[in-house]
Amino acid sequence: MAQSKGTVVLAYSGGLDTSCILVWLKEQGYDVVAYLANIGQKEDFEAARKKALALGAKKVYIEDVSREFVEQFIWPAVQANALYEDRYLLGTALARPCIARRLVEIAQREGAQHVAHGATGKGNDQVRFELSCYALCPKIKVVAPWRLPEFYQCFPGRRELMDYAKKHGIPVPVTPKTPWSMDENLMHISYEAGILENPKNQAPPGLYTKTCDPANSPDTPDVLEIQFERGVPVKVTNTGDGATRSSALELFVYLNDIAGKHGVGRIDIVENRFVGMKSRGIYETPAGTILYHAHLDIEAFTMDREVRKIKQGLSLKFSELVYNGFWHSPECEFLRECIGHSQEPVEGTVRLSVFKGHVYILGRESPRSLYNEELVSMNVQGDYEPADATGFININSLRLKEYHRLQSKVTVKQDE
Amino acid sequence: MAQSKGTVVLAYSGGLDTSCILVWLKEQGYDVVAYLANIGQKEDFEAARKKALALGAKKVYIEDVSREFVEQFIWPAVQANALYEDRYLLGTALARPCIARRLVEIAQREGAQHVAHGATGKGNDQVRFELSCYALCPKIKVVAPWRLPEFYQCFPGRRELMDYAKKHGIPVPVTPKTPWSMDENLMHISYEAGILENPKNQAPPGLYTKTCDPANSPDTPDVLEIQFERGVPVKVTNTGDGATRSSALELFVYLNDIAGKHGVGRIDIVENRFVGMKSRGIYETPAGTILYHAHLDIEAFTMDREVRKIKQGLSLKFSELVYNGFWHSPECEFLRECIGHSQEPVEGTVRLSVFKGHVYILGRESPRSLYNEELVSMNVQGDYEPADATGFININSLRLKEYHRLQSKVTVKQDE
Amino acid sequence: MAQSKGTVVLAYSGGLDTSCILVWLKEQGYDVVAYLANIGQKEDFEAARKKALALGAKKVYIEDVSREFVEQFIWPAVQANALYEDRYLLGTALARPCIARRLVEIAQREGAQHVAHGATGKGNDQVRFELSCYALCPKIKVVAPWRLPEFYQCFPGRRELMDYAKKHGIPVPVTPKTPWSMDENLMHISYEAGILENPKNQAPPGLYTKTCDPANSPDTPDVLEIQFERGVPVKVTNTGDGATRSSALELFVYLNDIAGKHGVGRIDIVENRFVGMKSRGIYETPAGTILYHAHLDIEAFTMDREVRKIKQGLSLKFSELVYNGFWHSPECEFLRECIGHSQEPVEGTVRLSVFKGHVYILGRESPRSLYNEELVSMNVQGDYEPADATGFININSLRLKEYHRLQSKVTVKQDE
Amino acid sequence: MAQSKGTVVLAYSGGLDTSCILVWLKEQGYDVVAYLANIGQKEDFEAARKKALALGAKKVYIEDVSREFVEQFIWPAVQANALYEDRYLLGTALARPCIARRLVEIAQREGAQHVAHGATGKGNDQVRFELSCYALCPKIKVVAPWRLPEFYQCFPGRRELMDYAKKHGIPVPVTPKTPWSMDENLMHISYEAGILENPKNQAPPGLYTKTCDPANSPDTPDVLEIQFERGVPVKVTNTGDGATRSSALELFVYLNDIAGKHGVGRIDIVENRFVGMKSRGIYETPAGTILYHAHLDIEAFTMDREVRKIKQGLSLKFSELVYNGFWHSPECEFLRECIGHSQEPVEGTVRLSVFKGHVYILGRESPRSLYNEELVSMNVQGDYEPADATGFININSLRLKEYHRLQSKVTVKQDE
Repeated sequence: MAQSKGTVVLAYSGGLDTSCILVWLKEQGYDVVAYLANIGQKEDFEAARKKALALGAKKVYIEDVSREFVEQFIWPAVQANALYEDRYLLGTALARPCIARRLVEIAQREGAQHVAHGATGKGNDQVRFELSCYALCPKIKVVAPWRLPEFYQCFPGRRELMDYAKKHGIPVPVTPKTPWSMDENLMHISYEAGILENPKNQAPPGLYTKTCDPANSPDTPDVLEIQFERGVPVKVTNTGDGATRSSALELFVYLNDIAGKHGVGRIDIVENRFVGMKSRGIYETPAGTILYHAHLDIEAFTMDREVRKIKQGLSLKFSELVYNGFWHSPECEFLRECIGHSQEPVEGTVRLSVFKGHVYILGRESPRSLYNEELVSMNVQGDYEPADATGFININSLRLKEYHRLQSKVTVKQDE
Repeated sequence: MAQSKGTVVLAYSGGLDTSCILVWLKEQGYDVVAYLANIGQKEDFEAARKKALALGAKKVYIEDVSREFVEQFIWPAVQANALYEDRYLLGTALARPCIARRLVEIAQREGAQHVAHGATGKGNDQVRFELSCYALCPKIKVVAPWRLPEFYQCFPGRRELMDYAKKHGIPVPVTPKTPWSMDENLMHISYEAGILENPKNQAPPGLYTKTCDPANSPDTPDVLEIQFERGVPVKVTNTGDGATRSSALELFVYLNDIAGKHGVGRIDIVENRFVGMKSRGIYETPAGTILYHAHLDIEAFTMDREVRKIKQGLSLKFSELVYNGFWHSPECEFLRECIGHSQEPVEGTVRLSVFKGHVYILGRESPRSLYNEELVSMNVQGDYEPADATGFININSLRLKEYHRLQSKVTVKQDE
Repeated sequence: MAQSKGTVVLAYSGGLDTSCILVWLKEQGYDVVAYLANIGQKEDFEAARKKALALGAKKVYIEDVSREFVEQFIWPAVQANALYEDRYLLGTALARPCIARRLVEIAQREGAQHVAHGATGKGNDQVRFELSCYALCPKIKVVAPWRLPEFYQCFPGRRELMDYAKKHGIPVPVTPKTPWSMDENLMHISYEAGILENPKNQAPPGLYTKTCDPANSPDTPDVLEIQFERGVPVKVTNTGDGATRSSALELFVYLNDIAGKHGVGRIDIVENRFVGMKSRGIYETPAGTILYHAHLDIEAFTMDREVRKIKQGLSLKFSELVYNGFWHSPECEFLRECIGHSQEPVEGTVRLSVFKGHVYILGRESPRSLYNEELVSMNVQGDYEPADATGFININSLRLKEYHRLQSKVTVKQDE
Repeated sequence: MAQSKGTVVLAYSGGLDTSCILVWLKEQGYDVVAYLANIGQKEDFEAARKKALALGAKKVYIEDVSREFVEQFIWPAVQANALYEDRYLLGTALARPCIARRLVEIAQREGAQHVAHGATGKGNDQVRFELSCYALCPKIKVVAPWRLPEFYQCFPGRRELMDYAKKHGIPVPVTPKTPWSMDENLMHISYEAGILENPKNQAPPGLYTKTCDPANSPDTPDVLEIQFERGVPVKVTNTGDGATRSSALELFVYLNDIAGKHGVGRIDIVENRFVGMKSRGIYETPAGTILYHAHLDIEAFTMDREVRKIKQGLSLKFSELVYNGFWHSPECEFLRECIGHSQEPVEGTVRLSVFKGHVYILGRESPRSLYNEELVSMNVQGDYEPADATGFININSLRLKEYHRLQSKVTVKQDE
């Protein structure tokens, strides 16, 4: 046994990798505190606790962070219409700073100088974890075994990991591992690596776990009304059975159920990781997909055109920052403040239908809408003078005419 | 009959409005040349020609611009992933500058000093038409009856238009008008006004004409392979029956068929018009929706991350310009050049499934992909040194640590 | 005398143009209330009051808005580093919404349904005035004589205006008019039109009025220390004579004096007007130029790099909006909120020298600086691990290497 | 002597640091090829050659890259109006990729697998060098001694370096080192570190080497005419003595002379390094400063307003990329293409005065200007209808009125 290196708080998942890391950290001379975040994934938390203790953890924290995940991380993303590279709803990227924040808190509570995680050396999650930790507690030391040659060179493949597990009494999963890796939380599940690494390979039908196959989903839609205040959903009503949900967490879980039942939220993309490589991921984000569409709609209905355009630019930047792991950064804080400010009038109700993998907006209403039915009407003149449009167009054309004038001059000269 | 005002070329649709305008322009003393663009809408063009001549048109041009519409207007939009306000694929906005360009050409050929159109005074289309005309031919004079009090005050409602039609022998449609207005071209159809002006009202089921109701669409998907070169589709293959299409126009029509059959491409949105009001529109863009998803995918697969980010900003601007009617402008030309340049490596094949109103990406391959399976692999180290990520993260955290240091200092000070 | 049209509040300057307009408005049947804003221009306000009354104004308001101009309009521009098209500090553009706000207030107080101004039909100021008025009081009606044919067709040139003045007893200036037009306020003076319309013509030496010719300015600099809080100057100290100024208005006036004495703040530019034409303007902005440089410096010293980058984008948009007349708009309000928020840490003191037309930054200090002397030191390692930079560079190079790999592949293929 | 490690090409400056590195590399077992780039710095190149050979370099390349520096690196920056963080003209950042490109070429010519440089571990230059090398030759291996503990731990201070030099017969400079470090090339010289690390300390008067103290500069200006084509200067004429320069390099050298003589181009800033820290730098960029102002002017005169706005955004990004070392990257290549394209009409002559540290624009003319003297004239109506501006303003106000309407509604509600 190596010399004592003090206490490390390990972000523990209960799976094979972090179990091996737990044991290995002890071998290296650390006292290990295991921290398992309940962020909405399907997991037997009590079994995980026992396992960690059995493997030698000095202490185990099982922390339910799902409510704060929804309220403090998912809601700002909904307000932003956050989307990385036009497609990814950032399910994993939003969870990391939430998990890491508690990790740092536990480290501080335990007087631990180190934290550890099981993220790989090629991925985004290592960055997201560590930037969050350093931002919140600059003195913290991160142990990332998958980046330490003394660790990763021992485990070039899964077989060596299994051998290590067997040797150290780490329970090995009885079900054969899927030929891809998964990461799940309340918002989404990701599938990548393994057979999915070939971007041409279609996802096998049995892969999906959070959403039903649209081919087998119900033949009648669910029609929902989602009510927003300050850009955040505050109530969902199913117009079919009258079911309603109001608290953030319950509302989100309910939307996951409805969307999952109708096969909504699947994507298969190639994305650009922060470390500079392209990777292929398959994601399911059921509730997030419904909320993305609903929020877009109520925002367009209530927000001034030009404010919206500015906010759209801020959201693009926000999404990139979140993806890259900069949730806890001055710039991301600044953006959340600005975007939050833009959401003040985003209030009202969107009616939508969820059916066969798709979300259809049906209508919307709001006490704060800038929509003016009389102004836009084709049958009523309202407070609008058509002749003004002539001036508007003429002035807008001035610059174009000047450009044409010059182009002609140039062309004529060239022809001479 | 008023004094002769010379020749006007009227963008004629064959419908009631522009028929009345044709007659009215003659009353005002114009010689009217009718120009009917075939841009892919369903229309009996020969009947329209006869009608125009019967109403007194001096000459009728029926011009098939559908091929140039696809190649010169839709393709650049596909390359740009053009989307106005995150949702609208710009079907009408792209058609206007295509129609207007020919309008100006005909005016020049005919020696006409005037052009006229039937667009209303509150909408975007008047702007799109006229900015195009002025940009291409600054000397042209536009007659926009719906903005002339002497015209529009005569026709406060549809009844007065019908009366005028009857009085002047203008054939009145026998089928009752739908309680909304429509505009169709090869790319899309829009529905707005009338009962749709209340943004809460759901679109009636019978409204849609270009796409099947997803509830009634086939229970088996069509799986397509779309091949791109320079960001533009060059071949589509239906893996089911082996059907292929290669020429731009045929390919686009085929995608319309497939998407239409599966109910793909419907949206219901509130958007911001250039003239400053919010309006509600319902759109069907079948082929455009498939191509939007397919192009996003092949582009992400082949384009460098940072080039993509810059290009995304350019595309946002491009979409706004197209929506606002600035297709024929120096800035839009400039953007098309830049975006076109970015598409040089966007080459490869996307496999996707079209089913029940949704498009699912299944896989992709490309000879130009920047995706490196070995580099990204979780099982192979490849040309990647995990320890480098430590330095990368540490340096990225430097700024965050400094910020924290300062915040603490400030907080401490405030606490004192 | 025409039929009574109610009361109009005229933005009156005391000059020939608005004096003629005053009389003309009365001729048209308006009761005219004259409003003369004291926004720091050199003017004999009491003489102007008498003149307006003599010309038939029902009432005259002379309102000193210079303090609010500095605090509510110039300060936000300083925080933004506002610059239109990289050069123009927006002196006129900032004054217009300040003047117009009071104009609307007076109209409301007086129960006037109309406001009038003397801005020309080709310029930016008409837009800035009117958008401000409409934004603050949508029901207001604007009378802009220089856009009314019944007015401007009477006055094709200055001679006709003089004739009209003489005929109606309007005092005509005894000094010959400069062959250019001027607009002055506390922040700047602009020169345009007349002989300056030829963009090749150099400004004549005698033109400048707010700044000394640098060729004749003092041979020793003034060295100032400017202290900022929340991005706004709160104290200026002249290190030479120890003079200090702290209140916003006095501080700004003092900087005008110092900068003016040293010939600081002259520019000669061609700019793009909102109405679509290019125009040539010569401006003097003495204090504004010093503050631009000083604020840039203290901001760079105290603001996080990435926050700064986002804020820079917002400021570009802010400057454009202010130039175009959208100060009183939802988007400009939103930007001011965001930019204001970014200024929270912008605190400290900048030392600078003002000499011969130029401002030289000499040094800066701040209790909130993110500058870390130890961290950056070339002699001390500080809390920095040089080896980390290797990983940082390697990971940043990954994408570039991949791009090279692909380019080579493509090139090789083409060579085959 | 260690085992042979093959050949390394060292970017050699002739100074103490890289001389020590040369010897140290040999000690480590490398064959060292010294490469000294003549990029316009003041240097006795032949002496440097002899010194390198004397220290054991296998071969010495002295490469004059100044012409390509101007034409291929400075010119694109001029076209872009490149400015990092609103102030820094990027003098060093532009030189690095130019030097590094030749470095890689020499390595390939010499069959060397390694390159080495003397940049420190905290700075930007290491990144700029290495990213360039990796982008151009992914297989290259970089040796950066200042990041290798076995090197830098031997030299914690200058004394140890001097000791090492003496021990190994490396000539030690006879003049005492300035208490700051300098980096010079044709475009600029930078001063940083040492006593300048305290950002409050004013630069000592004797520091500057490329520009005259404005207090002592001539009392009469030089008036220049700079002619541009495609955004690049092609001819400079001194209107005083009629001197002209046309070739890129000579023109640039001449502008350096004139600007230097008049004390133009000094700045003192705090900037944000790519590695995440703030640093203080003092720079002289004489010709670059003149060209920045001249190009801004001719561009504003000839480029469409909206194209300019888009291009401005691209330039901001370009400047950041260049600063961070990404000159040789797909995104920077893309930006250069786009910006280059925008420069097509940027043609004409700017007249300016250089005097006492400042550049004054006096006038401009161009065959391609979009400036239309008649259109803008206050005395001629030209092809402009003032009444159009009414419609333009009214339509632009529509959105603002709607916003006000809503705000009032909200306020009223809150008041109830």
